[in-house]
Amino acid sequence: MDGLMMDYPLTLVHILERVREFFGRVEVVSRLPDRSMHRYTYADFYRRAKQLAKALTHAGIHRGDRVATLMWNQYQHLEAYFGIPACGAVVHTLNVRLHPDELGYIASHANDRFIIVDEGLLPLLEKFKVQASFGRVIVVRHRQGSMIGSYCDYEDFIALGKGDFSYPQLGENEAAALCFTSGTTGKPKGVLYSHRAIVLHSFALALADSSGLAQRDVVVAVAPMFHANSHGLPYVAVMLGAKLVLPGSHLDPDSLLELFELEKATFLSAVPTVWLGILGELDKNPTRWNLSGDLRGLGGGSAVSESLMFGLERHGIPVVQAWGMTELTPVGTVSSLKSYMEEWPEEQRRKVRCSQGRPIPFVEIRAIGAEGETAWDGHSLGELQVRGPWVARSYYNMPDESQRWTVDGWFRTGDVCTIDSEGFVTIVDRIKDMIKSGGEWISSVDLENAVMGYPNVQEAAVVAVPHPTWTERPLALIVCKDGEAVSTEDLLRYLRGRFSKWQLPDAVVFVKELPKTSTGKLFKKKLREQYRTWNWEKSGPDIN
Amino acid sequence: MDGLMMDYPLTLVHILERVREFFGRVEVVSRLPDRSMHRYTYADFYRRAKQLAKALTHAGIHRGDRVATLMWNQYQHLEAYFGIPACGAVVHTLNVRLHPDELGYIASHANDRFIIVDEGLLPLLEKFKVQASFGRVIVVRHRQGSMIGSYCDYEDFIALGKGDFSYPQLGENEAAALCFTSGTTGKPKGVLYSHRAIVLHSFALALADSSGLAQRDVVVAVAPMFHANSHGLPYVAVMLGAKLVLPGSHLDPDSLLELFELEKATFLSAVPTVWLGILGELDKNPTRWNLSGDLRGLGGGSAVSESLMFGLERHGIPVVQAWGMTELTPVGTVSSLKSYMEEWPEEQRRKVRCSQGRPIPFVEIRAIGAEGETAWDGHSLGELQVRGPWVARSYYNMPDESQRWTVDGWFRTGDVCTIDSEGFVTIVDRIKDMIKSGGEWISSVDLENAVMGYPNVQEAAVVAVPHPTWTERPLALIVCKDGEAVSTEDLLRYLRGRFSKWQLPDAVVFVKELPKTSTGKLFKKKLREQYRTWNWEKSGPDIN
Repeated sequence: MDGLMMDYPLTLVHILERVREFFGRVEVVSRLPDRSMHRYTYADFYRRAKQLAKALTHAGIHRGDRVATLMWNQYQHLEAYFGIPACGAVVHTLNVRLHPDELGYIASHANDRFIIVDEGLLPLLEKFKVQASFGRVIVVRHRQGSMIGSYCDYEDFIALGKGDFSYPQLGENEAAALCFTSGTTGKPKGVLYSHRAIVLHSFALALADSSGLAQRDVVVAVAPMFHANSHGLPYVAVMLGAKLVLPGSHLDPDSLLELFELEKATFLSAVPTVWLGILGELDKNPTRWNLSGDLRGLGGGSAVSESLMFGLERHGIPVVQAWGMTELTPVGTVSSLKSYMEEWPEEQRRKVRCSQGRPIPFVEIRAIGAEGETAWDGHSLGELQVRGPWVARSYYNMPDESQRWTVDGWFRTGDVCTIDSEGFVTIVDRIKDMIKSGGEWISSVDLENAVMGYPNVQEAAVVAVPHPTWTERPLALIVCKDGEAVSTEDLLRYLRGRFSKWQLPDAVVFVKELPKTSTGKLFKKKLREQYRTWNWEKSGPDIN
Repeated sequence: MDGLMMDYPLTLVHILERVREFFGRVEVVSRLPDRSMHRYTYADFYRRAKQLAKALTHAGIHRGDRVATLMWNQYQHLEAYFGIPACGAVVHTLNVRLHPDELGYIASHANDRFIIVDEGLLPLLEKFKVQASFGRVIVVRHRQGSMIGSYCDYEDFIALGKGDFSYPQLGENEAAALCFTSGTTGKPKGVLYSHRAIVLHSFALALADSSGLAQRDVVVAVAPMFHANSHGLPYVAVMLGAKLVLPGSHLDPDSLLELFELEKATFLSAVPTVWLGILGELDKNPTRWNLSGDLRGLGGGSAVSESLMFGLERHGIPVVQAWGMTELTPVGTVSSLKSYMEEWPEEQRRKVRCSQGRPIPFVEIRAIGAEGETAWDGHSLGELQVRGPWVARSYYNMPDESQRWTVDGWFRTGDVCTIDSEGFVTIVDRIKDMIKSGGEWISSVDLENAVMGYPNVQEAAVVAVPHPTWTERPLALIVCKDGEAVSTEDLLRYLRGRFSKWQLPDAVVFVKELPKTSTGKLFKKKLREQYRTWNWEKSGPDIN
């Protein structure tokens, strides 16, 4: 027997209408390419997003069509976030940091019909647009002058959408947004978000134990809007009617801190690299910035280290760790303490806060090791698997990737983790970066972190190399600091105090640099290929 | 084109499993009939709720069957809240304050198959059980001794449910709970909640601008669990893993304050009558109670007056006003200030805080007057209508009540309101209690409040009486304080300063008492019937 409640779909259209009705006076602030500030209200945002929806419809965009964006975090991007889904189409955020060939592949695979592009990113677009088939290129301009060739000015385009517009009656399961993962292996894979997933994720992310956002907050969307929906923050801010600040492409610590001060920011979400820059600047000039006493944030994208977290706390900025993936809209877990943990000794509380946290409501977790589901004992290793209403059930047009889901319907994150008795997840490594040695797993990340803490080491990578006896063994690759050297013997002696003998690298290789992906991550796949034929007999120190 | 996200239903089963996995150590505290405290953890709660689900299944309860409860707020009621829906059945909370005839009608109309009843309420059950057809009466006992006749002990019953139990695969639209409105007109009407509606309502109610509840909170569910789901709080507390305190039937101010102090309560939701009692006791003994500095709350059920709200604030207890109805699961609006209102003058802020508030996300509002949708100008009167995923679309088995929904699918609340330019709703009166005089509406509530503020008036009601010229005119009924008298002339002179002449009562009648409904509300329908034939010619002062 079904309940007798209204069949009211969870769509972004409701959020768009709501922000006009109740928060029309609240500001959206964007930093423009020339560093000047653009200000308007949610009433302006609403009018323009709706104009965009109407203009797209008139230009022949149909339900389910993909419209790409190639933009930094700016108000036109926010208009696209809502205006494109409001007409029933799908906003496809292209990652401006990818290689043009990848972008060409992605735009073509997604079959994007139109693209909205920031003027400053036109040179990038030129490099891949032949691979795609954009019926229209709509340019967000910041200067006067005539438009290049057949391109169309964003302002002219949305001007065509003035006047009344009736939204299509959207179902909550219809697609609203598309984002490709910038994985380090294989082709980029598209995650197709439904209206429902985005709405439910917004509710869960807004909870006190997740972000605790409220209408009174001033939210800075630092994480790029082309990267996992800027951690979902723009949707939450608009749903709550909170003031939203978009930093454009100015993501250096000085520009960000200036923005926080100027706009009285109370909340941001960023990757550790950005937090690290902010901490560096605050440590250098602790009294320079007059920040809101309420400034707090989420750290996601990769693990926020203890020193980073407590460094920021020294400057009065509490940061909560979150774990997520593009496939999770993107947040899965947040490391908020539980009530009774407040009484725990400092050391234990730190450990919890530095873990990836516990799942937000309606995300289920489990870890699967060699023997099936692992115990929640804080040390058994297994692959983290998740389920929930905002978890992808497949990639867009990628039937070959179905091995990423288990037969019983869980998403295989590719992360190896432990789960403790309180349900807190600690990610240990990517499964493909783990070293399988004699039936045991060795974490490359743990070794790398230890090596990077050794004097004169600039950067390090530890990768698995095939081994005739042990299946795989760890090989360490080290970049020394300029003009410095590291003794292999001394380094291994140092590591011996921290790891079991069988976990130590069997060889250390000094290199000039380490390969990186287009998003700046270590390109371990390339390293593994490069050292695949490493001869263990001839090389490496005897560690016995 | 649909998004590619998991088809993961929003059900209470997820919340039940979640509380075991992550919050098994958190306490649920209940006050028993003998005033002693019962404590157990969510791990215990989980185990017993699941046993109840299994025992019901084994006893022949099927998907969609109704299982009634007749209980105060206590842990077994919480077990029923989750255990009954977890086996696919519907928990039907019977209001212990209703007249036995009403209860008989309701239980029979709902076709309740089983009933779980508190031992202390057995005498009430005896009065109506012949009208219903309970296949089994399960008694929650507090004393030793043998069980009456064929009744079954709750503990014995759930003991039959030990061991593994596989939940049925529930869809989110399946019914989870049933609650009848105790309206003052017509037959009681059943509202059938889906799992989806309860889950979405829980998310929206948990938001910072609604209740702002977090796992660290200690939530006292003061509003009865048989009355509009105790304002939805038990579901939110379990979803977040917050400590939950259930006061049993001990709702007097002393017992409640003692409980708040003992359990370090941080949050409660209650009707104004209960808040008034709390304020009275605090005013009398301001230093007696050592309350948590974080204690805050929601006031719902009817309007929290300004003096009550600011009286509580003087004792350090901020209260936010909420408006809801059984038909809304139950919360629709909450009167949280917006960021920029914090800068407003005190007077204006008070007005906003004393309104019924702005809708929580995914609730839509409008007011319909004689000329259609009213302007949001703060003074145009219209009937409040609402839509949203947790708003009823019809009553249970009541096709005759379909006029409560508009043809375009909005629920007619029966409340007359204004909406201001910020979207804040102020409820003026029930539509049936408004007086339609010469094409204009007069609010009976405004007049009553004014009359009740006059010296020597104990209680007052203002009702519409048919009038040959004006359609209806207001008649005031007054109970004077013991041994005191009120001069009609003086009273009308006093009112003249506060209302337009045409809004004043045309007659004043002094009575010994005013009729009340079983839930203690003014029984205006009865008064209107009683004075229907009032002769305006012969009576009443000339007010010209």
